[in-house]
Amino acid sequence: MNIPIILGTAREGRQSAHVAKYILNIVKVAGHESAILDAKDLAPAVTDNSGAGPKAKKYKAAITKADAVIIITPEYNHGYPGELKLLLDSLYKEYTGKPVGFVGVSAGPLGGSRAVEQLRQVVIELRMIPVREAVYIAGVQNVIDENGMISDETMDKRVLTLLADLERHVR
Amino acid sequence: MNIPIILGTAREGRQSAHVAKYILNIVKVAGHESAILDAKDLAPAVTDNSGAGPKAKKYKAAITKADAVIIITPEYNHGYPGELKLLLDSLYKEYTGKPVGFVGVSAGPLGGSRAVEQLRQVVIELRMIPVREAVYIAGVQNVIDENGMISDETMDKRVLTLLADLERHVR
Amino acid sequence: MNIPIILGTAREGRQSAHVAKYILNIVKVAGHESAILDAKDLAPAVTDNSGAGPKAKKYKAAITKADAVIIITPEYNHGYPGELKLLLDSLYKEYTGKPVGFVGVSAGPLGGSRAVEQLRQVVIELRMIPVREAVYIAGVQNVIDENGMISDETMDKRVLTLLADLERHVR
Amino acid sequence: MNIPIILGTAREGRQSAHVAKYILNIVKVAGHESAILDAKDLAPAVTDNSGAGPKAKKYKAAITKADAVIIITPEYNHGYPGELKLLLDSLYKEYTGKPVGFVGVSAGPLGGSRAVEQLRQVVIELRMIPVREAVYIAGVQNVIDENGMISDETMDKRVLTLLADLERHVR
Repeated sequence: MNIPIILGTAREGRQSAHVAKYILNIVKVAGHESAILDAKDLAPAVTDNSGAGPKAKKYKAAITKADAVIIITPEYNHGYPGELKLLLDSLYKEYTGKPVGFVGVSAGPLGGSRAVEQLRQVVIELRMIPVREAVYIAGVQNVIDENGMISDETMDKRVLTLLADLERHVR
Repeated sequence: MNIPIILGTAREGRQSAHVAKYILNIVKVAGHESAILDAKDLAPAVTDNSGAGPKAKKYKAAITKADAVIIITPEYNHGYPGELKLLLDSLYKEYTGKPVGFVGVSAGPLGGSRAVEQLRQVVIELRMIPVREAVYIAGVQNVIDENGMISDETMDKRVLTLLADLERHVR
Repeated sequence: MNIPIILGTAREGRQSAHVAKYILNIVKVAGHESAILDAKDLAPAVTDNSGAGPKAKKYKAAITKADAVIIITPEYNHGYPGELKLLLDSLYKEYTGKPVGFVGVSAGPLGGSRAVEQLRQVVIELRMIPVREAVYIAGVQNVIDENGMISDETMDKRVLTLLADLERHVR
Repeated sequence: MNIPIILGTAREGRQSAHVAKYILNIVKVAGHESAILDAKDLAPAVTDNSGAGPKAKKYKAAITKADAVIIITPEYNHGYPGELKLLLDSLYKEYTGKPVGFVGVSAGPLGGSRAVEQLRQVVIELRMIPVREAVYIAGVQNVIDENGMISDETMDKRVLTLLADLERHVR
């Protein structure tokens, strides 16, 4: 299957970029085609769903051929990053019917769970299918390095559980 | 009192800009000092709470001297605009203790109520005080013109009710 | 298909009971098997997912044989009714994979949209598939009578759109 | 000050009852008057804001004399317990202007944070003032015993931080 990974922050020093490397590796090892869709490169400067411009075309092509999508989101002030929302709002009908799974990331103990909950409300409106399984990476700065190597041995299994839930909902 | 109005979208053709003119007029007529803080001018390009740069300084000065804040938000896919979140996330401690009221805007019948609910979760983390009263402007394209003139005669009273709730919570 | 309708309030004088009659009629006319699952009769007194007792057995049997579910919810203080949550929390694995659609009901202008948003977060955890389409009945006391006769001529079409979205997600 | 503690679940075997003992002790040691308002005893059988009956009168008296309120909530399926919502919905104007703080409880790692977020939307409609500080007790079965003795040494400080935030917002 084709399962791209949206990296939902462009913030300087973002730990979520390391998480993206880690997730990408697992998704590929599991036999799927994947690539990182980086909000830093692809999000428009302001809300714009005209589909115009090179960024929009690249993102549209990637979502169009996807079977399912993984979204990595840090949590900023109990919500999602602005640049992630700009990216999500830049398309509409291309998302239809595609399962979506979330990876929440936080420096604190709650793993980005509140950003994930808000995003689930958004993706329903995008006609995606939000799956139950999710991965929450708390204290990210302590468990993952810049090469995407993780010290929490239970994490691989959690990511595979999320992947299985996505696969189950593809049709 | 000083009650700035955050215009929470930079989208081409934004109807919320007309709403901002309308609200600004009422707030001033009610005897308050006010100005529009436009996400189009003030939001950083990506999440950045370093406070650096001229945009950040202007926004910081405005929030620092505010007694309360009004946020105008359209609803995009059941959430808030990315550029509004970028703006809100660009400061932190300057918001502390300030009452905040919402004006939701939509082309459809539900007046942006879902974006408002998500934002209330965000502003609590910013240590603001979200007041109960809110204004919902549904079918915005039919009730307000580009000069901020409104055809719904009940709206003035609703805005004044929101203002009174903000005033009640200033300390 | 078998598409039961959960009536999510037991409050004295509940207008949602009239809405349930109205929805039930359309679902049957569309050729589906259906019945009203009334929170008044089926919700346990306190949160209890032991599955014990005659109420739990009746509700379990109904959900087990359902292909999809419609939930009618009024909005109380921007959330869902307690008795509806007690009912939903009384089962778990029987919900898995079933599409769910919402009918929001309110006396005011916003049609219960905020209760619907909170419930969507709940049903994802129940492994259901929340569909995008929804029906919002605002000012319910003015548009529907005690026999489920509705004066808003656009409503039938909206309910059929919700039904079509549910059908599309059954597998 | 008078700061009652709402125990938001009546479920058999509820760990939150132990948390309530623990919190009650700290609130009293900090010099406040307090008592546990147990949803098991005080929640109506169905949503009812008539204020009639002995349960409603007892709850009304307690909230009326409160300066601030603490709500202890477990998280059931990413939402709040039905019996807690029944209790909250049984009053309205008595809550006005009172600061409210949350203690989230979970068996898993996320400390009830999602139930807290949903409840914050509810209490704004009740005209309460939701404070930023909150306490999240994850893996509750491992950190607290039936007498309210806690093994996590950092917890006392977190509860005191919540108390200070409540005190700051009383007026």
